[in-house]
Amino acid sequence: MGKRADGRANDEIRPVKITRNYISHAEGSVLIEFGKTRVICTATVEEKVPPFQKNKGLGWVTAEYDMIPRSAQVRIIRPQTLGKINGRTHEIQRLIGRSLRAAVDFGKLGERTIWVDCDVIEADGGTRCASITGGFIALFDCCRYLVSENIIKEMPVENFVAAISVGIINGEIMTDLCFSEDSNADVDMNVVMNSRGQLIEVQSTAECNTFSKEEFLKMLELSESSIEELFLIQKNAILEK
Amino acid sequence: MGKRADGRANDEIRPVKITRNYISHAEGSVLIEFGKTRVICTATVEEKVPPFQKNKGLGWVTAEYDMIPRSAQVRIIRPQTLGKINGRTHEIQRLIGRSLRAAVDFGKLGERTIWVDCDVIEADGGTRCASITGGFIALFDCCRYLVSENIIKEMPVENFVAAISVGIINGEIMTDLCFSEDSNADVDMNVVMNSRGQLIEVQSTAECNTFSKEEFLKMLELSESSIEELFLIQKNAILEK
Amino acid sequence: MGKRADGRANDEIRPVKITRNYISHAEGSVLIEFGKTRVICTATVEEKVPPFQKNKGLGWVTAEYDMIPRSAQVRIIRPQTLGKINGRTHEIQRLIGRSLRAAVDFGKLGERTIWVDCDVIEADGGTRCASITGGFIALFDCCRYLVSENIIKEMPVENFVAAISVGIINGEIMTDLCFSEDSNADVDMNVVMNSRGQLIEVQSTAECNTFSKEEFLKMLELSESSIEELFLIQKNAILEK
Amino acid sequence: MGKRADGRANDEIRPVKITRNYISHAEGSVLIEFGKTRVICTATVEEKVPPFQKNKGLGWVTAEYDMIPRSAQVRIIRPQTLGKINGRTHEIQRLIGRSLRAAVDFGKLGERTIWVDCDVIEADGGTRCASITGGFIALFDCCRYLVSENIIKEMPVENFVAAISVGIINGEIMTDLCFSEDSNADVDMNVVMNSRGQLIEVQSTAECNTFSKEEFLKMLELSESSIEELFLIQKNAILEK
Amino acid sequence: MGKRADGRANDEIRPVKITRNYISHAEGSVLIEFGKTRVICTATVEEKVPPFQKNKGLGWVTAEYDMIPRSAQVRIIRPQTLGKINGRTHEIQRLIGRSLRAAVDFGKLGERTIWVDCDVIEADGGTRCASITGGFIALFDCCRYLVSENIIKEMPVENFVAAISVGIINGEIMTDLCFSEDSNADVDMNVVMNSRGQLIEVQSTAECNTFSKEEFLKMLELSESSIEELFLIQKNAILEK
Amino acid sequence: MGKRADGRANDEIRPVKITRNYISHAEGSVLIEFGKTRVICTATVEEKVPPFQKNKGLGWVTAEYDMIPRSAQVRIIRPQTLGKINGRTHEIQRLIGRSLRAAVDFGKLGERTIWVDCDVIEADGGTRCASITGGFIALFDCCRYLVSENIIKEMPVENFVAAISVGIINGEIMTDLCFSEDSNADVDMNVVMNSRGQLIEVQSTAECNTFSKEEFLKMLELSESSIEELFLIQKNAILEK
Repeated sequence: MGKRADGRANDEIRPVKITRNYISHAEGSVLIEFGKTRVICTATVEEKVPPFQKNKGLGWVTAEYDMIPRSAQVRIIRPQTLGKINGRTHEIQRLIGRSLRAAVDFGKLGERTIWVDCDVIEADGGTRCASITGGFIALFDCCRYLVSENIIKEMPVENFVAAISVGIINGEIMTDLCFSEDSNADVDMNVVMNSRGQLIEVQSTAECNTFSKEEFLKMLELSESSIEELFLIQKNAILEK
Repeated sequence: MGKRADGRANDEIRPVKITRNYISHAEGSVLIEFGKTRVICTATVEEKVPPFQKNKGLGWVTAEYDMIPRSAQVRIIRPQTLGKINGRTHEIQRLIGRSLRAAVDFGKLGERTIWVDCDVIEADGGTRCASITGGFIALFDCCRYLVSENIIKEMPVENFVAAISVGIINGEIMTDLCFSEDSNADVDMNVVMNSRGQLIEVQSTAECNTFSKEEFLKMLELSESSIEELFLIQKNAILEK
Repeated sequence: MGKRADGRANDEIRPVKITRNYISHAEGSVLIEFGKTRVICTATVEEKVPPFQKNKGLGWVTAEYDMIPRSAQVRIIRPQTLGKINGRTHEIQRLIGRSLRAAVDFGKLGERTIWVDCDVIEADGGTRCASITGGFIALFDCCRYLVSENIIKEMPVENFVAAISVGIINGEIMTDLCFSEDSNADVDMNVVMNSRGQLIEVQSTAECNTFSKEEFLKMLELSESSIEELFLIQKNAILEK
Repeated sequence: MGKRADGRANDEIRPVKITRNYISHAEGSVLIEFGKTRVICTATVEEKVPPFQKNKGLGWVTAEYDMIPRSAQVRIIRPQTLGKINGRTHEIQRLIGRSLRAAVDFGKLGERTIWVDCDVIEADGGTRCASITGGFIALFDCCRYLVSENIIKEMPVENFVAAISVGIINGEIMTDLCFSEDSNADVDMNVVMNSRGQLIEVQSTAECNTFSKEEFLKMLELSESSIEELFLIQKNAILEK
Repeated sequence: MGKRADGRANDEIRPVKITRNYISHAEGSVLIEFGKTRVICTATVEEKVPPFQKNKGLGWVTAEYDMIPRSAQVRIIRPQTLGKINGRTHEIQRLIGRSLRAAVDFGKLGERTIWVDCDVIEADGGTRCASITGGFIALFDCCRYLVSENIIKEMPVENFVAAISVGIINGEIMTDLCFSEDSNADVDMNVVMNSRGQLIEVQSTAECNTFSKEEFLKMLELSESSIEELFLIQKNAILEK
Repeated sequence: MGKRADGRANDEIRPVKITRNYISHAEGSVLIEFGKTRVICTATVEEKVPPFQKNKGLGWVTAEYDMIPRSAQVRIIRPQTLGKINGRTHEIQRLIGRSLRAAVDFGKLGERTIWVDCDVIEADGGTRCASITGGFIALFDCCRYLVSENIIKEMPVENFVAAISVGIINGEIMTDLCFSEDSNADVDMNVVMNSRGQLIEVQSTAECNTFSKEEFLKMLELSESSIEELFLIQKNAILEK
């Protein structure tokens, strides 16, 4: 079993860095880095909920995701120029929203929505996992703000949420794929968990390929240990002033 | 363990019916029914491939999904009236496309695209799984047509592909959720497999909820046995004249 | 005067079949078949009216029309992919709406809208006439539902409405053109009538061509007798349980 | 039988005025006035044809129609602000295109398209008929320009085309309805004819109403005599330098 | 210093003609001509204000600008066909709106919006300046109408507003550029002033070029004298019945 | 004359910081900061030019501008969600494009386009000036890359380009307005200059207000001295490795 392109072991995640209060306007905001992948995550409070959630005394969390044009190797045409949001963007922002909602007690949040915006500044694989992991901290800080301002009484965030991508490349199972690894992966799996050891979302995809149940279970195990590392990093981040 | 709303056992799928050659214009077309859920799937050949696949001698398979307005309990506003495709539609049609691509040898297909259109006529849960399972037969018939017309030499479809949704409702794991079950599910999981026993896609989602690894594995097992039943139904369908 | 491609006489309509209650969610729904042309028509009640009809105590009827991609010989790009509704669709759905409104007493309907959706499953000419003729039955069943549920007191549908296309092909006047006939027609005429013998809409079009008044009058006569046949079929349909 | 609001007899059209060469850039352009209704019609040559007409040596004629916002009594929101073309606009511009195509020998025009743009400056009923009648002169002048520049050899316009609206108001049949009459009409009919006495398009619509065959035939007769008057006006217009 | 293409001196504006009450529906409407450039300007009252201006007792003025397709030498594709408003249009209509707002006392206008629509019929340079200069008269007439109808008590228009474009062509500074001059200009400057000698907007642009401060100041002086001429023409126009 | 909110003198610009090579994928990229205003500017080479520039041997420079949702105090709805680009964005990106084009010799660049993307991360006034000033460095680095890779022979950037906003607040003329100052300004002026002392663009706007020629000239002078400071900062930035 040889080293990976950047010298990491197969079960080693890239250096993760979380910079809180990155945008001064937002109630919660972080710059999260997974190696060269960088995402700005902000959390914004809106004092209303979507129609399906109205008059229940419950809150809501939703997410939007985008990439600035040159975050990618080939410049991305802006969706407003193209005239539509592409399917991949839709898929990712729906995943982020579902993942973060699993961390929140909507009753404690009350009838308001938290918008989590994830804007990719530089993409080197794993942007959706970085968005979930960083978006969680923005959401957490936003909720802490609501408590500190006495807008809500109790912290509605109930546990940590983080995500990692793992995959199989040339028969080897690796964690936290960078872009060049992701492009060559036979199978790609994104796992979202909370800090109580529960799964929130498992998405395993074999583009033009397949995988066995055994491979699947090994990938799941590797993702669990990587996510445990992310929880430690998240915990350290929120302890800083 | 009580019976389900429609009297089924927890591990029992709904009656599945596949009507081939449903639309006379299409190279492949089926009406597939999973209980009350009905989807028209057609396969159309286009003699070109997307830009990223050009000049490689390889084919492509892509899918589109939509629901007629009153396929749902509450009338759906058409995307052309709304001015955009919603995220759920994008997510589903991407899943169908990836799932069906895993069944096809692109070299044998040659530089042409097969478009699989899945239009839901009536929705009672499981429309994405019915679309994959029925879309596979439309794709299969379309390829058989290409072979019979001597447009291609060998059948590019290499094995069967089918999909099922399983979920946890009040702590019980059930297969092939109908709409009322799906709405009450704590966890919802879609599994796509091929007839060689390999996994193609696993998507497990806990909307505002979580699930343990044990539950996850039980759901995976149940989905495997349900998909085996779907393979039998598919095999019978293609034997009919 | 020779036989037509499918052996029909010039004044003979294709077999028409109306299947009621085709979609279980809708207040009214039919599958209507004019030969190989098949259209799903549903009627949905919305408890509000458009702005121009507000606060008058009067109802409204509106229609939408679309074709699934492979209902046609050449796959149709979905309007949501294209980014716009094409002009033909607009023209047809406006015609359906006007035709059905002529059957309804808006005072008896009260301030609510009935949406009639016509989705073409397979197109072999005459889709707009099939939509009007089938849409009428969906509308009728929807109104009967409103009466049976005591939402309204009296049946607001006042008479039957049906439509037929007639045309001139190589100098011969024919009724109920199928697609291959329609493509070769010098003149194409759509007539909508009610069961009191009144005209609702007459549209006669000579694409890159013209027609004399005498031809016009003969076409009108032929359409009257064909529509009479459709009224009989509609009447039989609503008598079935 | 009383006089109409503006003192006209029932069979009397409004004063029609055609000002040629109204826009100096266009190959053909007129301002046409039907009473207070004013429409600018321009004809533009494009040296290509739509895909379905390619490589046949044949030309094409197409039309676009729009209204400036305050041409109507209530300001119209621009389609670009609304984000879509409304159905009425689509219906009208398709009618104008079909009507003008009936006047042209596509072989003599050669593989080029003439775009006829009809922009309503002030609307007081009959804008589609004014657009056809004025658009014809713009088209005629444009073709004359092509001949004079030796781009084509023979004049491709083969006869005059004009259009009128007639209707039934309180039981009386009237020609060339102004807006207030049109709003109160029980039945509204647009007839397009050529100067050989042939019909090109007949559209008769009873919004929420019906009409008998006898009424229909009387309307058709009245429209014929009104269109004869329009042909005289068109002929005089093209004689002017 | 030679003569210009149309024989004008460098400091000479084109003949300007203002025709009031050009569209009978509008509360204010003019046809303004700057030589061959012709723009229809209408002013429409709407009894509400945009959200940011609500509940302040203050009014608002906004503008929209468009060109009919063949107002230009090469036919312009309509924005609704293109699917978007182009940037130039946005830039111009924002400029017209800002310029006209500077003329109005929003307190005297009260909580209502005046929409000024500028539709270019023929473009030969200077359309934005003609729109501002003519739009002002439409706005003025609209306000006079509001006063005469006792909807407002005092005239909210406080002074005249007009605009001119000046530029440098082959080293010579010229006023009121026509299209051929504008295309060859090294620098193009639009100045909006009011009749109290105050500046409202100065926009000086060197497309792929630059200009010195001295040139800039000379252009500014020339624009002031041209605008003075426009004020005289505006004053004469509003004196006419 | 009192101090400003942040203690600056009226003629004092905020601290400006330029971080080069901010995005590793782009041929040129900077993070530019004007106080709290932060903009990421990237330059991308595309080996083709727009239609109007084809087959001339000349290049092109174009710009796009956007703000991430929470760069502003109130969250901005993404243009793709809104369905359109707003007018302000169009206006700004056209200004950036024109300003940067004035710095480039298109013959030396050859038939290729440089796309300059300016994405605002945090907005505290002056984002368009920061975008021009930072976009220039991204453009410069991109050209330097083209030369170093021997794609072009000579550096096509001919001089520095920078921009500043000045304004009048309560009668005092101030440079480099931050957001709170900009909101209260009576007049707002953006000036773009090159390092040869030439003007490229002057835009002076009095939203619902006016300004005298004297004020205008004072603002112009102040902007010149501020831009000189920006040139020094740009020059230092490009000297760093």
